[in-house]
Amino acid sequence: MSGATGRGVIHGVGVGPGDPGLLTVRAVEVLRSAGAVLAPAPHRGGDSLALSIVRPYLPAGCEVHTAHFPMTERRGELRAAWDEAAALLLRLAAAGAPVAFITLGDAMLYSTWSYLHAAVRRLAPDADVRTVPGVTAMSACAAAVGRPLAEGREPLLVWPDEPPADAGELLGLAPNVVFMKAGRHLPALATAAQRSGADAVAVRRASRPDEAWTTELREWSADREYFTTVLMHRAGEDTPTDGSAPASDPEEEHA
Amino acid sequence: MSGATGRGVIHGVGVGPGDPGLLTVRAVEVLRSAGAVLAPAPHRGGDSLALSIVRPYLPAGCEVHTAHFPMTERRGELRAAWDEAAALLLRLAAAGAPVAFITLGDAMLYSTWSYLHAAVRRLAPDADVRTVPGVTAMSACAAAVGRPLAEGREPLLVWPDEPPADAGELLGLAPNVVFMKAGRHLPALATAAQRSGADAVAVRRASRPDEAWTTELREWSADREYFTTVLMHRAGEDTPTDGSAPASDPEEEHA
Repeated sequence: MSGATGRGVIHGVGVGPGDPGLLTVRAVEVLRSAGAVLAPAPHRGGDSLALSIVRPYLPAGCEVHTAHFPMTERRGELRAAWDEAAALLLRLAAAGAPVAFITLGDAMLYSTWSYLHAAVRRLAPDADVRTVPGVTAMSACAAAVGRPLAEGREPLLVWPDEPPADAGELLGLAPNVVFMKAGRHLPALATAAQRSGADAVAVRRASRPDEAWTTELREWSADREYFTTVLMHRAGEDTPTDGSAPASDPEEEHA
Repeated sequence: MSGATGRGVIHGVGVGPGDPGLLTVRAVEVLRSAGAVLAPAPHRGGDSLALSIVRPYLPAGCEVHTAHFPMTERRGELRAAWDEAAALLLRLAAAGAPVAFITLGDAMLYSTWSYLHAAVRRLAPDADVRTVPGVTAMSACAAAVGRPLAEGREPLLVWPDEPPADAGELLGLAPNVVFMKAGRHLPALATAAQRSGADAVAVRRASRPDEAWTTELREWSADREYFTTVLMHRAGEDTPTDGSAPASDPEEEHA
């Protein structure tokens, strides 16, 4: 795939939650044709989980690069890092073959790709930039536990930040709340769930060989593991899958 | 794959938003080994979009069944339909080969699968029931438009129901709101976005060959198309990808 500019297409590829089987067919096609791959790395030169997921799919001779993005809220520093990575993507694409930036989960949900996508467009407005969506970690958590993220007409709130002092308040906004990066907040979330009679489950490493989950949030409460997600469901609502919510598969109304 | 009971494993498979390339590798593996597939159909005997997506992957001799789920909120009627479909899945699995229920998008987000999963467990507590997560329609919408669902520390609210009279209120709860099944509500959402200075885009048939999107919601306002999603972003927040939100790729803190 070569863009109108003679430059290779730049793809942002969501590689899913961890199981290489949860890459999409399209992601595999893009990676198999890639001349170069850029992966986010936690430290300069550190290992990249996204890279370990896609390695089996990379063709011989595919160049592999990593980029480090600082954990900071200083705008200038972040923007410089994104611009640097975007410039690298453009240089790699100049060779003519497709280039892929790989990112965990979905490429457009809490992903560095959204910043890089914008940075590439700023630097080269005529670049052919495409996004391959991926399976989110929260979908993998729900699959692992065997309970829905949301059903029927119930809204879903996804909360990526520190929970408020009383996390149960969020259940007043939506009967289903997904707390992401919740490893540090399990004691507070356990208390909130108990106080509001909510149903809660903590999941980690969903879809990976060491996947684990518990409804006893305090079991893990001394733990700080970053990749922990909590699915909470408000008491007083229909319990998920108790059969009282309306069917909602869009298929039903389609045709 | 045969369960401990000698019965084939029953899989709920999210087949993604429409592009057969957005099935996961795991979904393809499950379908290729399936002895039977059950697809939701909008009408008894009607066409199933989910079925058209997976057809290229079904092995010769795979039995194909469809099930109709009534668009009703009457609990008894729904439960009877789910139990009937669950009983069919169990009968099909008795042949020993894996069986798949296919559903659009992710299998645990606004999907009939969550009800069937529970119904199968009610009817046969020892059944081996598994879920293969899938790419959601909203991820495909974000990829199509090239803008994020949510970034950094911003919560995301997914709203599957009729919007409130002033849909802009929801932006007070979360700076990013996804309105699903919004085809009937485009005029109201256009007004709400305008009033609150929010940034909004409507997307339909994301990932399909006739994918389309517009930021002029009124362009489609006479339209009733069910598969329309609106992504709204609150004014006053950092514009998506303007570079001012913190990096949030979990990869960054992983190691």
